[in-house]
Amino acid sequence: MSITLKQIAQLVDGTLHGPDELVITGAATIRDAAPGQITLAEGEKALKQLATCQAAAVIVGKLPAPPELPYIQVDNLHAAFAKVVQHFRPRRAHARGGISPAAHVSPTAQIAANVTIAAGATIGDDVTIDRDCVIHSGAVIEAGCRIGAGTTIFANVVLYEDTIVGEQCILHAGAVLGAYGFGYTVVNGRHELSAQLGYVELGPRVEIGSGTTIDRGTYGATVIGEGTKIDNQVQIAHNCRIGRHNLICSQVGIAGSTSTGDYVVMGGQVGIRDHVHIGDRVMLGAKTGVMNDVLQAGNYVGAPATPEREYFASLFGFARLPEMRKQMKQLERDVAKLKADAGPSVARSDAA
Amino acid sequence: MSITLKQIAQLVDGTLHGPDELVITGAATIRDAAPGQITLAEGEKALKQLATCQAAAVIVGKLPAPPELPYIQVDNLHAAFAKVVQHFRPRRAHARGGISPAAHVSPTAQIAANVTIAAGATIGDDVTIDRDCVIHSGAVIEAGCRIGAGTTIFANVVLYEDTIVGEQCILHAGAVLGAYGFGYTVVNGRHELSAQLGYVELGPRVEIGSGTTIDRGTYGATVIGEGTKIDNQVQIAHNCRIGRHNLICSQVGIAGSTSTGDYVVMGGQVGIRDHVHIGDRVMLGAKTGVMNDVLQAGNYVGAPATPEREYFASLFGFARLPEMRKQMKQLERDVAKLKADAGPSVARSDAA
Amino acid sequence: MSITLKQIAQLVDGTLHGPDELVITGAATIRDAAPGQITLAEGEKALKQLATCQAAAVIVGKLPAPPELPYIQVDNLHAAFAKVVQHFRPRRAHARGGISPAAHVSPTAQIAANVTIAAGATIGDDVTIDRDCVIHSGAVIEAGCRIGAGTTIFANVVLYEDTIVGEQCILHAGAVLGAYGFGYTVVNGRHELSAQLGYVELGPRVEIGSGTTIDRGTYGATVIGEGTKIDNQVQIAHNCRIGRHNLICSQVGIAGSTSTGDYVVMGGQVGIRDHVHIGDRVMLGAKTGVMNDVLQAGNYVGAPATPEREYFASLFGFARLPEMRKQMKQLERDVAKLKADAGPSVARSDAA
Repeated sequence: MSITLKQIAQLVDGTLHGPDELVITGAATIRDAAPGQITLAEGEKALKQLATCQAAAVIVGKLPAPPELPYIQVDNLHAAFAKVVQHFRPRRAHARGGISPAAHVSPTAQIAANVTIAAGATIGDDVTIDRDCVIHSGAVIEAGCRIGAGTTIFANVVLYEDTIVGEQCILHAGAVLGAYGFGYTVVNGRHELSAQLGYVELGPRVEIGSGTTIDRGTYGATVIGEGTKIDNQVQIAHNCRIGRHNLICSQVGIAGSTSTGDYVVMGGQVGIRDHVHIGDRVMLGAKTGVMNDVLQAGNYVGAPATPEREYFASLFGFARLPEMRKQMKQLERDVAKLKADAGPSVARSDAA
Repeated sequence: MSITLKQIAQLVDGTLHGPDELVITGAATIRDAAPGQITLAEGEKALKQLATCQAAAVIVGKLPAPPELPYIQVDNLHAAFAKVVQHFRPRRAHARGGISPAAHVSPTAQIAANVTIAAGATIGDDVTIDRDCVIHSGAVIEAGCRIGAGTTIFANVVLYEDTIVGEQCILHAGAVLGAYGFGYTVVNGRHELSAQLGYVELGPRVEIGSGTTIDRGTYGATVIGEGTKIDNQVQIAHNCRIGRHNLICSQVGIAGSTSTGDYVVMGGQVGIRDHVHIGDRVMLGAKTGVMNDVLQAGNYVGAPATPEREYFASLFGFARLPEMRKQMKQLERDVAKLKADAGPSVARSDAA
Repeated sequence: MSITLKQIAQLVDGTLHGPDELVITGAATIRDAAPGQITLAEGEKALKQLATCQAAAVIVGKLPAPPELPYIQVDNLHAAFAKVVQHFRPRRAHARGGISPAAHVSPTAQIAANVTIAAGATIGDDVTIDRDCVIHSGAVIEAGCRIGAGTTIFANVVLYEDTIVGEQCILHAGAVLGAYGFGYTVVNGRHELSAQLGYVELGPRVEIGSGTTIDRGTYGATVIGEGTKIDNQVQIAHNCRIGRHNLICSQVGIAGSTSTGDYVVMGGQVGIRDHVHIGDRVMLGAKTGVMNDVLQAGNYVGAPATPEREYFASLFGFARLPEMRKQMKQLERDVAKLKADAGPSVARSDAA
């Protein structure tokens, strides 16, 4: 699959600065590139890293300064590099084989045109799957679920009964939607499970990471808004209502009945308590612990969630606590001495 | 499925305060209720929220003050509302189809009466499943497991060999019981896995959330006590012994050989180190990090786990650290000046 | 399966100090041992615990002091005790049944000799599986994956297309390798998914816990180095490059493009941001939050990651903040009084 630099420039519709006939044998990032391969560089830092990179050539976007390697300049760097990577390692098409005879599909399920259901997938009673969906092996779609057009459900995803998935969604392997909410009341020393009559509803273009779990509502829906993207191993509890176009990073946990506005961003391992609201365009840094409503747009961090600048000022103080304790002791000694010394004279001056 | 307010009052055995013939078209919580629907209100706060709710009527329990909507008063609010929700959206019965011919069941497995095993579930050699159990699609029950009566195992759960599950348990989708413990010794620069001869044992009425993982013991059992409820994505390591009637929220991690008493409660994302004990009725707040035994009942929070009142007092100080640092600097300036000023006079007064 | 103490001593090639004919009915750890059973004791603390243990005999290694129970002394304590446990509860052999007719195996997959593929497992097009591998039920190996010799893949693991797994690896139930990385760019107010052209590559003797997720690289590999062991529910993001012989405990999250050296150890619930490097033999305590490179070997803890000694000194101060605030107020009162008292006299001494 080797190819000349000129051919690559043609492939990506770029401007070549270097020898036409240089043979390129692969494409990889700066960290990984081997001799003979082409890489990509975005930003000043990356251009500097080229000095120690073994790549034979580089693709760049807007130039801060021309690299010392042969280079191809393009308008859209990532789109161009993706084309080159795919030349060397063509993307494997997901099988589009219709409904596998080894899938377990209920006779009452309604499957639209051009749907792929792989071997070992299970489709329950009364499920409806709109056109152009792909359901991978081992996925279990329980009774009454409704899947919108163009959605991909990867292997071993589980949708409990009556889950609603919008169109153009992507659900990664092992995600679980619609398990029971974690709500109990104590009856005679035992924890009795609350009602589990609700379901989960995803808007269009929602993406759900591997191992992420979203519990059904108590009486109604747990809702994920249009265009929201959720990373791996996120937990969203019963009755939550997540807004549109949120980005929720890995291992975030959101407790019951909490809601978010639009364009909220959460870093990894954030935890949010139950029954609070996170406002539009709030950004919560990694590991933030939210104990109250956070309504004002801006960056927050710490537990409880604190405006970033304030929190880092406190953290600066935290690192200096041992020094502060020494200073405090010195002050106490000084003041004790000053008091002792001043004692009589103060008494006199008071008397004066 | 529309129904009059009078019919709803009869359905829930409640007292109607409002027009008999008002037609109700659905049931939803205050946040979600649309015009024509009935909602529920519990507590003063909820009664206030009714003012901006579109519901046509409300179900209430004990009345602090009569709402301005037509209302039905009942003894058990949640049981009543659950009945109404189920009138409008009848609960889907889990299929009770016996053993699916598309399940993979070992001929040496012993399956009692009235057990449902769905398509694509796998039951290994010598497994015993007591009466009234339901095993969903894609669940894998490895050889030698024993499942008590009335237990539900949802889709894609994995039980490694010899797992023991009590009666009336619920195991949610994707939970994994009995994987190897994370124990290694270094031999010639390599990590060698420790013995993996144990198993996992759940008492009766244990509930396990989606994606939760409980590792087998090294030589014997990792035990979860009767009535304990565990939320999604919890990790319980090898040799742990969790007591009875614990509530363990999502994303908690408990390291090896740690034990808990009864009625312990852990908030989300708590982490507990190995080989410690958590006493009866200890409550650990969200994100608490436990580094030592916590034996005394009460509320703890922070890392290391600290009695709640103490921790919040420290946290109050943390937020004021920037201010404290300013005060400290001012004090140092003041004291330096006092010392400088007092210097000669102190010397004199000493000499006097 | 009862056996005499003498027979146990012969089984483990140990030296018996106690009655030959004592009948032993089982083997369990000190915490769990019942009357008539044999236990093991390692270290002084364990020897003390024997006083309240019901065991009839004990196996020990090097002796700090002879226990008061009948005992058997051996060279390798854990290997000896494992033998005894297996006498009483023989380890169940994983089925070695070749390729189950109920597995879904692509005709283009290449399966070497002595490979076991259980019922309900799915093997995609062009997959290659080397000799002596075991693939459990419900595992889904997508097209183009390559699995090294002697590797075990437990139930319901998912490998996305083109995943490379080294030899002698162990992948526990529900692990997911190769899902899409969490990378987006905003286009017209929508989050557009970045390129997903890479794959996951595990070196030899890597072990992956249940529910752990490792995302594919953007253009190339996400790499886990030889001999690295990863616990349950760990998240490793796209483009990461984890070194050799790392130990990564449960619920750790590592963001995109981060790399580690060799022999790195991470406690539970550690979080590491994207694009940083963790040096050889760095140890990160539980819940540490890494915000920058950590290059120097040693123990770190806190967020941001701080050398252990420094962090605990700050933490000591944190616990004393309420007291410090009182001391500060007292100092302010004292200094104010000193200033007031000194005021005129200072003025005088200045004037002098």
